[in-house]
Amino acid sequence: MTALRIGLLGRGTVGGAFERLLAERAARVAELTGREPQLAGILTRSQGDFGEILERSDVIVELIGGVDDALGYVRRALEAERDVVTANKQLLSRHGDELFALARERGRSLGFEAAVAGVVPVIRVLRESLAGARLERVHGIVNGTTNFILSEMARTGCAYADALAEAQRLGYAESDPSEDVGGGDAAAKMAILARLAFDARVHIDDVRFEGIEGITPGDIAYARDLGLALKLIGTAERLEDGISVRVHPTFLYAAHPLASVGGSFNAVTIESEAITEITLSGPGAGGMQTASAVLGDLVAAASPAGSRPPGAAAAVPIVQDVVSAFYVHMEVDDRPGVLAQIAAHLGEEGASIKSVVQRGLGEAAQLVMVIHPLPESRLRAAAERIGELEFVRSAPRAIRVIDEEFE
Amino acid sequence: MTALRIGLLGRGTVGGAFERLLAERAARVAELTGREPQLAGILTRSQGDFGEILERSDVIVELIGGVDDALGYVRRALEAERDVVTANKQLLSRHGDELFALARERGRSLGFEAAVAGVVPVIRVLRESLAGARLERVHGIVNGTTNFILSEMARTGCAYADALAEAQRLGYAESDPSEDVGGGDAAAKMAILARLAFDARVHIDDVRFEGIEGITPGDIAYARDLGLALKLIGTAERLEDGISVRVHPTFLYAAHPLASVGGSFNAVTIESEAITEITLSGPGAGGMQTASAVLGDLVAAASPAGSRPPGAAAAVPIVQDVVSAFYVHMEVDDRPGVLAQIAAHLGEEGASIKSVVQRGLGEAAQLVMVIHPLPESRLRAAAERIGELEFVRSAPRAIRVIDEEFE
Repeated sequence: MTALRIGLLGRGTVGGAFERLLAERAARVAELTGREPQLAGILTRSQGDFGEILERSDVIVELIGGVDDALGYVRRALEAERDVVTANKQLLSRHGDELFALARERGRSLGFEAAVAGVVPVIRVLRESLAGARLERVHGIVNGTTNFILSEMARTGCAYADALAEAQRLGYAESDPSEDVGGGDAAAKMAILARLAFDARVHIDDVRFEGIEGITPGDIAYARDLGLALKLIGTAERLEDGISVRVHPTFLYAAHPLASVGGSFNAVTIESEAITEITLSGPGAGGMQTASAVLGDLVAAASPAGSRPPGAAAAVPIVQDVVSAFYVHMEVDDRPGVLAQIAAHLGEEGASIKSVVQRGLGEAAQLVMVIHPLPESRLRAAAERIGELEFVRSAPRAIRVIDEEFE
Repeated sequence: MTALRIGLLGRGTVGGAFERLLAERAARVAELTGREPQLAGILTRSQGDFGEILERSDVIVELIGGVDDALGYVRRALEAERDVVTANKQLLSRHGDELFALARERGRSLGFEAAVAGVVPVIRVLRESLAGARLERVHGIVNGTTNFILSEMARTGCAYADALAEAQRLGYAESDPSEDVGGGDAAAKMAILARLAFDARVHIDDVRFEGIEGITPGDIAYARDLGLALKLIGTAERLEDGISVRVHPTFLYAAHPLASVGGSFNAVTIESEAITEITLSGPGAGGMQTASAVLGDLVAAASPAGSRPPGAAAAVPIVQDVVSAFYVHMEVDDRPGVLAQIAAHLGEEGASIKSVVQRGLGEAAQLVMVIHPLPESRLRAAAERIGELEFVRSAPRAIRVIDEEFE
């Protein structure tokens, strides 16, 4: 198997996570690409020589950040006909015209899924799935720090400064948060999304942006009165006379798909006439999440031409008796001891009751329980015996419950 | 420019929509693939000869449905070394092992984005973005008919039969709805998703499924009491001793990303340790949406190897003065005529008030308005003049509102 030699630039949070993930998933990468991944060299701000690493690499993974040095590295890598993967939104929002043209000219791939919305695959969806569609608009929550702060303000009613301090304490905001809270980070990402959505040259200087520093608890309280949610929304849209790209604090009506995106999550809604609207959401930040997006780009860059058909698939055991929480609905005669006898049968099968609601009285009584997770076979066994009790008037009906709290 | 000769099998709802979309987007497809798309022939149940169409085609687009005939066509196309795009979930959930192996063996692409969740790009995301990730679980709402029916039951409190009749009236359910409401359609889709997620051989017969025919308004009412939403959920998950693939009516806690997916929408949540969780959602059905997914696969099959870098991008005018609805916050002295004067200034700029909330009295009064969409420059002009009124104690603050009701 030939080697896939990777030159890694940067070993910070994302670079370090990528190094670990690559080691962990090396066998899978080899299986998918037909090439054995090897770290050919690592460049940090204090160590390594870029020229030597480039010489030894097939792919350059740029996670060193900044603009000027990174521009030099990516430019030299493409000129030397290496594939490049980068997570650098500032670089692409400022020098996209040059770098994309260079990649096209040299026939190399330039992957940048990790530059926008972390592991949420909006770049691939815009570049590939929707390549044939005429898009009308992209709305995005593309900065996890500000979404966390606004979610905290909405949840607790606290002031902006307190929510920012909490975000900093939890590692969602940097000690100098201005790039995030001022909207500059989101503006760079929206410049990249707008370029892809409309196949248009968009520079970060074309993006108008405003941050969330001026948002008050009063704004959020009033919004709640009006049935709105407050988010930092990036918008790229096609208008009659051109396109508009902007980032602003924005109120959304509760039914909007972005209104319920909480915490540090990112989400993007893409609209066109043919597709109506699709929404992608997930964790926007985090070293491991970003590294996972970088790894996906690496696999794509190193994969043989065309789509890999799935199917060298393994024969895997299919499990039938699965653990789940259950809702159980029973029609019972309402008389003393009913609940105790039902609970006893459940207990014998190891079923533990989370909640009970009774409705109606006498012969028309209905009992609804939520049961903590247990193997379905045991729930069925208990339900069968409960169905035979004389005061139970029809076989209990069971419906599964997905409850993340249980897990 | 060389031709991209397309053999289309089927001219029903999706086939007809594909034919129209291809004509409409021909120039874009040519730009993306470097080849000029041409319909080489159309096979319907009553017209055309498959052998002749195959001979004249580079790509076969199978939208004829059914299993046996479709299997013969796709098999012959791959054996003749043609790329294939299909939307046929029953075919792939029954004959996936054979067809994916054949595609791999002949080095052809077999695109099937449209087979699961319509235009929601879950296939591409699983095959490509997450190719390097170890996935733990996929939960999906993958049948729009049942989601519409359950959403109607929750919204109106009506019985299953009434919601089904409404779905049929609106075209969301077929006259024989059994494949959808019985869970068989969702089971086929989950078999395909499980294969991709776990790289495992999964046949539709491995999937346990239950439909929604037995759901009562009482279940939904009780669920609401317990803070749950009821959905038909497909689950594919990795367990200690194998995998499990199943489809059941399932209660979700309100915070689950699938709980708020309403109407005929589809959505899929993908979980792994490295990515945490991503969710993709959008319209699951509809001829045009499915055709759009087919077109995306066609572009991918016909594109030159490697990723297309964006950047042959056009210079497009960037619009700065955009129309938006606004929330406007003002601190005012609460005295007669205040609202009238503010409304007059807004009216001069063409701003129309949607709603007003006042809080506090006297000098501490706060006035919050939502203004119907107008160009930002006009809102700013009105706000500036309002800020100069003697009873307005600080410059009005404006925040954008996204309100789909307005649009």
